[in-house]
Amino acid sequence: MRVLGVDPGLTRCGIAVVDGAVGRKVTCVQVDVVRTPVDADLAVRLLAVSDAVEEWLDRHRPDAVAVERVFSQYNVRTAMGTAQAGGVVALAAARRGLPVVFHTPSEVKAAVTGSGRADKAQVTTMITKLLGLREAPRPADAADAIAIAVCHIWRAPMRNRLAEAEARAAEMARNHKARIAAASKRKTTT
Amino acid sequence: MRVLGVDPGLTRCGIAVVDGAVGRKVTCVQVDVVRTPVDADLAVRLLAVSDAVEEWLDRHRPDAVAVERVFSQYNVRTAMGTAQAGGVVALAAARRGLPVVFHTPSEVKAAVTGSGRADKAQVTTMITKLLGLREAPRPADAADAIAIAVCHIWRAPMRNRLAEAEARAAEMARNHKARIAAASKRKTTT
Repeated sequence: MRVLGVDPGLTRCGIAVVDGAVGRKVTCVQVDVVRTPVDADLAVRLLAVSDAVEEWLDRHRPDAVAVERVFSQYNVRTAMGTAQAGGVVALAAARRGLPVVFHTPSEVKAAVTGSGRADKAQVTTMITKLLGLREAPRPADAADAIAIAVCHIWRAPMRNRLAEAEARAAEMARNHKARIAAASKRKTTT
Repeated sequence: MRVLGVDPGLTRCGIAVVDGAVGRKVTCVQVDVVRTPVDADLAVRLLAVSDAVEEWLDRHRPDAVAVERVFSQYNVRTAMGTAQAGGVVALAAARRGLPVVFHTPSEVKAAVTGSGRADKAQVTTMITKLLGLREAPRPADAADAIAIAVCHIWRAPMRNRLAEAEARAAEMARNHKARIAAASKRKTTT
């Protein structure tokens, strides 16, 4: 499974392509940080992020795209820009019919360090180890993009189980409704 | 001047094309509300908004795109979706080289009602009057999209004056720097 992981942002957008599967070694195919000028118009910055992602999708043909979900309440203006960068990444993937999944920072941290409260340094350390890199990816946004892709690969079995459980629940609800409808029909006809 | 105004959103996205100029009558060419299914994936919803905007840009060929800027701190999840919808609108415009301006809700209210604190009903009343409509545009998101476009048209002279002032300030700063550099050069050579 090949995943494009993105740590969205306008000033720095981490982007990584990771190959792997549950129980197998994960390999980083490419990792980089896309930067856009702070003084440029928002629309121009979004276009730069979008163009970069389109290029990576063309070059690496991933099976899925994983994006970090933003929740910050601290700096609303920054959070909005980050959310918008994540939005244009999701849009580029959707245009190609690729599945896009948003992972929260704590899901990503828990997947690669075992703790949802791990700090950035811990995430970087684990990513360096897991991928057998000689040195830590720099800046932190690069390591984060790899971590998001790894999280997506490792959470795949859980996502599948969840999807199956949801499908079963929907099926049960449909059967239940059908039984009630049949019973009420019997009642009115008798 | 023809402006595409957008009140961004995933559940309801107001979209309007308005023709007009400062001191002239404003006319609404088309107004609608784009809806996307609440239970669809975020990426799919963003794609639906993007496709709709692309279609409107093709059909109406506006000179500029005006988008309402989101600032809400109340419901972060909704605010993020709204910001992302606004982001894909800005992206579509930027891809065509169109200028995109974000206006805050209070700028829009002030432009059409004279007060930045006007309520939704006031905005709808004024939009209905200003455009000489027989009835108020429904839902409110449609009226809001028209209001954003009108705000953009009416604020154009102010934007131009601001841009000129900024250009003059930048020019003055450059001249000042050049004078200092020349002075320090004279000092070192003497």
